[in-house]
Amino acid sequence: MSYVSFHTDRPTDFVAIGRLCIDLNANEINRPMEETMTFTKYVGGSPANISIGMSRLGQKTAFIGKVANDQMGRFIVDYLKRNNIETSNVVTDQTGAVTGLAFTEIKSPADCSILMYRDQVADLLLEPSEVQEELIARSKMLLISGTALAKSPSREAVFLALQYAKKHGTVVAFDIDYRPYTWTSESETAVYYNLAAEKCDIIIGTREEFDTMERFESNAEHADQVTAKKWFDYSAKIVVIKHGKEGSIAYTQDGLSHQAQSFPAKVIKTFGAGDSYAAGFLYGVMQGWTLEKSMEYGSAAASIVISSHSCSDAMPTNPQIQKYMEQCRQGEIATS
Amino acid sequence: MSYVSFHTDRPTDFVAIGRLCIDLNANEINRPMEETMTFTKYVGGSPANISIGMSRLGQKTAFIGKVANDQMGRFIVDYLKRNNIETSNVVTDQTGAVTGLAFTEIKSPADCSILMYRDQVADLLLEPSEVQEELIARSKMLLISGTALAKSPSREAVFLALQYAKKHGTVVAFDIDYRPYTWTSESETAVYYNLAAEKCDIIIGTREEFDTMERFESNAEHADQVTAKKWFDYSAKIVVIKHGKEGSIAYTQDGLSHQAQSFPAKVIKTFGAGDSYAAGFLYGVMQGWTLEKSMEYGSAAASIVISSHSCSDAMPTNPQIQKYMEQCRQGEIATS
Amino acid sequence: MSYVSFHTDRPTDFVAIGRLCIDLNANEINRPMEETMTFTKYVGGSPANISIGMSRLGQKTAFIGKVANDQMGRFIVDYLKRNNIETSNVVTDQTGAVTGLAFTEIKSPADCSILMYRDQVADLLLEPSEVQEELIARSKMLLISGTALAKSPSREAVFLALQYAKKHGTVVAFDIDYRPYTWTSESETAVYYNLAAEKCDIIIGTREEFDTMERFESNAEHADQVTAKKWFDYSAKIVVIKHGKEGSIAYTQDGLSHQAQSFPAKVIKTFGAGDSYAAGFLYGVMQGWTLEKSMEYGSAAASIVISSHSCSDAMPTNPQIQKYMEQCRQGEIATS
Amino acid sequence: MSYVSFHTDRPTDFVAIGRLCIDLNANEINRPMEETMTFTKYVGGSPANISIGMSRLGQKTAFIGKVANDQMGRFIVDYLKRNNIETSNVVTDQTGAVTGLAFTEIKSPADCSILMYRDQVADLLLEPSEVQEELIARSKMLLISGTALAKSPSREAVFLALQYAKKHGTVVAFDIDYRPYTWTSESETAVYYNLAAEKCDIIIGTREEFDTMERFESNAEHADQVTAKKWFDYSAKIVVIKHGKEGSIAYTQDGLSHQAQSFPAKVIKTFGAGDSYAAGFLYGVMQGWTLEKSMEYGSAAASIVISSHSCSDAMPTNPQIQKYMEQCRQGEIATS
Repeated sequence: MSYVSFHTDRPTDFVAIGRLCIDLNANEINRPMEETMTFTKYVGGSPANISIGMSRLGQKTAFIGKVANDQMGRFIVDYLKRNNIETSNVVTDQTGAVTGLAFTEIKSPADCSILMYRDQVADLLLEPSEVQEELIARSKMLLISGTALAKSPSREAVFLALQYAKKHGTVVAFDIDYRPYTWTSESETAVYYNLAAEKCDIIIGTREEFDTMERFESNAEHADQVTAKKWFDYSAKIVVIKHGKEGSIAYTQDGLSHQAQSFPAKVIKTFGAGDSYAAGFLYGVMQGWTLEKSMEYGSAAASIVISSHSCSDAMPTNPQIQKYMEQCRQGEIATS
Repeated sequence: MSYVSFHTDRPTDFVAIGRLCIDLNANEINRPMEETMTFTKYVGGSPANISIGMSRLGQKTAFIGKVANDQMGRFIVDYLKRNNIETSNVVTDQTGAVTGLAFTEIKSPADCSILMYRDQVADLLLEPSEVQEELIARSKMLLISGTALAKSPSREAVFLALQYAKKHGTVVAFDIDYRPYTWTSESETAVYYNLAAEKCDIIIGTREEFDTMERFESNAEHADQVTAKKWFDYSAKIVVIKHGKEGSIAYTQDGLSHQAQSFPAKVIKTFGAGDSYAAGFLYGVMQGWTLEKSMEYGSAAASIVISSHSCSDAMPTNPQIQKYMEQCRQGEIATS
Repeated sequence: MSYVSFHTDRPTDFVAIGRLCIDLNANEINRPMEETMTFTKYVGGSPANISIGMSRLGQKTAFIGKVANDQMGRFIVDYLKRNNIETSNVVTDQTGAVTGLAFTEIKSPADCSILMYRDQVADLLLEPSEVQEELIARSKMLLISGTALAKSPSREAVFLALQYAKKHGTVVAFDIDYRPYTWTSESETAVYYNLAAEKCDIIIGTREEFDTMERFESNAEHADQVTAKKWFDYSAKIVVIKHGKEGSIAYTQDGLSHQAQSFPAKVIKTFGAGDSYAAGFLYGVMQGWTLEKSMEYGSAAASIVISSHSCSDAMPTNPQIQKYMEQCRQGEIATS
Repeated sequence: MSYVSFHTDRPTDFVAIGRLCIDLNANEINRPMEETMTFTKYVGGSPANISIGMSRLGQKTAFIGKVANDQMGRFIVDYLKRNNIETSNVVTDQTGAVTGLAFTEIKSPADCSILMYRDQVADLLLEPSEVQEELIARSKMLLISGTALAKSPSREAVFLALQYAKKHGTVVAFDIDYRPYTWTSESETAVYYNLAAEKCDIIIGTREEFDTMERFESNAEHADQVTAKKWFDYSAKIVVIKHGKEGSIAYTQDGLSHQAQSFPAKVIKTFGAGDSYAAGFLYGVMQGWTLEKSMEYGSAAASIVISSHSCSDAMPTNPQIQKYMEQCRQGEIATS
């Protein structure tokens, strides 16, 4: 059964709005960052990674965002283009803003952290008037990402994109992607996450992220069913709640819940797991696959990415995912 | 016919959230403010005025807001109390914020302006966590006012109040009250006004205010019917669009529009007309009167206030409105 | 003996740089401000008051400052002009800044306080490039006031004015006028007050103000002699340290200290005492009077102002001071 | 002849105050940064580099500064310690500030630029109260650097350090190091650079940097003699004005000027030239060498650093400088 239906006649499959930044990944890993001497540069940001993933999976993809008018910004736009992502709505900042940075620290596969540079970043300066209604109108799906809600005017740009999506019947997916450092307070987060989620067809987040959104509500036992039901009263068709190692569950309007197996991986780091999962899962949903099959595809994509040094660069193609799933079935890959 | 229904068994009739400030009204009027030497102090702010109006009309009234920890703030709380308004949810700021000021200039009855002090004001510092859900739950109607949406954290406090009202079935009235000086941009205004209005049962604004909200939409001819219809697709039951001297029209979900006569006045200044109109109109709606009768009551209240030196202090009682309407019918009052 | 010498051939006697604001004085006094219903508007700000005082005493006076582009700003400029103060270097802000406000509360003659509005005020936006070197070059004395050092760019404008004064041999007087609310920290205050005082010929402040400046120094016993000696190592010729009711002492480079009698007054409020004292004292110094006589003149001026409702408006003329001193000698005026 | 005399009995030779940051140097050079994929991490910041240089030259060295409470900050402190620099006055920020970053782009040896991250950096948050008077009191020389004057509270910390140096007779050297991106305006720069330079014994800057300081003065022909003379009227004993390829000139109070030969180099990039020059030159001055010999030593140190990939890491020791000078004399090194 298909829970969401798309305008299949539209020329663009997937458009994402939000953060475009630079990951600086430690080359010398399994140690504290103090001892890392060199870093490799990649495009980063959750919606950027998902877009790259969708494009690698053959979807016609576009991006709505803002980059700094510097070498980092130009690198990002160039990388998106080389990945066949339409950048007509990637605006260049003219105010002297910088590109957001994320230095990754990999002390061990299970102990990873990020050192963020998010002051005065270009991506949060996207203006509502810069969002192209026409692009959203010709896209089957719009992805929004939580970090873009953290500050004005980017926050307003996302709300306007949501209004355009509603007007034109574009399916909206929301990757909550909660990162405390850019928000003023948890109250602020809860308010805007709820206002955005009310307007979304597919909502994906961890249990902790949904808890953040329920700050002013009564769900003391953090029950997934309570969480999911709330959103079905608004626009949601699918609510995916991720429980880390215990796996993810997709809840649907018909009261059902859906689960899928996960895949082993020789883990290097945990970064990028959520983004590759989202790409694989949303790809499946767009193909009309069952939620179980879609989740499985997302899980395989995630296992590939966490076995690699980068996030964006490691986003897999269909043959890569299929081969990986096959290898796992053959028992050739075991969790490290 | 009744367009909105209230929880009539609730103990509190009316609660407003938003701006509490001080008006400093020129004593020497009909001249530029440069030549005014003395000013008289009054409580001000659109939702404050409407609350005072509702209380004078015999409604059990409460307020949700924040005042500075200074002489002005204490004066405001004291004035509300003296007007029988519950202040249990009027919080005192502890960060050194000031009370907003509005110096009025009355060059002539038709040429009035305001000099505003809105930097670092206490009313915009109301936190979501300070909004009492219990108060909204026991009130029949919640009034929100546009200026409280202009800045964080007051903006988030209003959105949380709207969420509580929805949860508890409290009828919400929205007085748009657009004042450019506290907003960062017109885009920001349009985005948040729309997000708020989607959740309101009764929306009251001028044609120009609705135009501001339609910044990213197509209503090139500024047609009232287009404006009203949009909101009926969300939560609205009544949309009142004010056209200045040409009078106001109330649109309702059933496709009807409603109008009422206005009253003459010996005008001193135009300030306070909208607030007294809102108080009179909402009072009528809460009594179950027809919209025509409610609008007439609001118009009479407005005529009384614009014939007076102050706004809050001049908010009329039922006997005053009835007497004024009677005098007008007798031809004893003519527009100056 | 004369401790400072002036370029007597210059056309302008006195120029002050700094704060121009509005005092809103309670009309109903001897009560908390909560109970004051009307306020009267006056020009205020320490250097403004001193300038008005100097002009009333017949000195050719000019002002360097910035006013808001509103009714309050225009009132200030007009008032200065009506008091024969040159306003060619009073710049009008174009950024939407407001005029600083000071609401006065007079609970009793001995219990006075001020409620300040100092956010985004025009006077602190004076730019270095707006300071007219030519005006300082043709003036005998420049007065700087501490509040103008509280924020950029006004702070830099004052330091540039000091550089111009040094270059052209203009005598500099510094009225410390420390008001905590506009400063970020006491450390910041101490640093800039010291940098400014190093370049001044005459320094006037209370014992507490000098203590603030000595935050990072060793003068544990708050000894006036230690304080004064420090400044004689820089540029100072006269250091006046005010001890409230115990009177003021002027220290001079030759190691002497100078004192004068004070005058009785029927005190209404304490505001303006320091400003009128400074005007009277500096006037005497400019006439070549002894410091004792100059201090006496300042004291008489102060007694007149604190017996009046306003500050600026009450600044006395020479005949008024002389008459007041004569009346005191005759025993016609006794402290209330 | 010796132009400055030091308290030779003090235990610490050299203490610097100011910027501590991270350089991220392009590994793949001679191309635009867009095409650089990996970066190597070094300690950076002009006063940090000079301190490292002084320590390498055998001077007992200390630092006054502030680092972020993160991996970058800990790396900086560790690196200073490993270079025998006392870090008792290197404070760790507790407000969530970040470490300043400088990504270097080396398009060619003659075409180098820097991409800076200077928002909310820890080094500019040094508080006056955090400066240890005792450390300055026991040091022979204090070096201040212009970038630390760019913002409060670091600016005030530097001015307090200057006051301590004056009090204790510590010789002060000022490396102007003007970098426009951290300043609000050129007027602000000029004002504070002048206030600081007035209190310094040795001032080192480029002709363009001195021009910036003379923004409000008349030196239309940018004459070195005019520039130098101004500072001899304050505290300066030596003023070094750098003219790029045309070499540097040291002016002294006695009216003399001093020059020295420069050395060839196989240039990789221009970064670090000024810092290594300052270290070599100040080292010579502290040894009591002639200015000519000191300048020569600085020039040789600079040639070594610009022939290397890093700045801080390449700061030479005495044997390295002596060997380099000898090699140049032998004609073994020619400019690339």
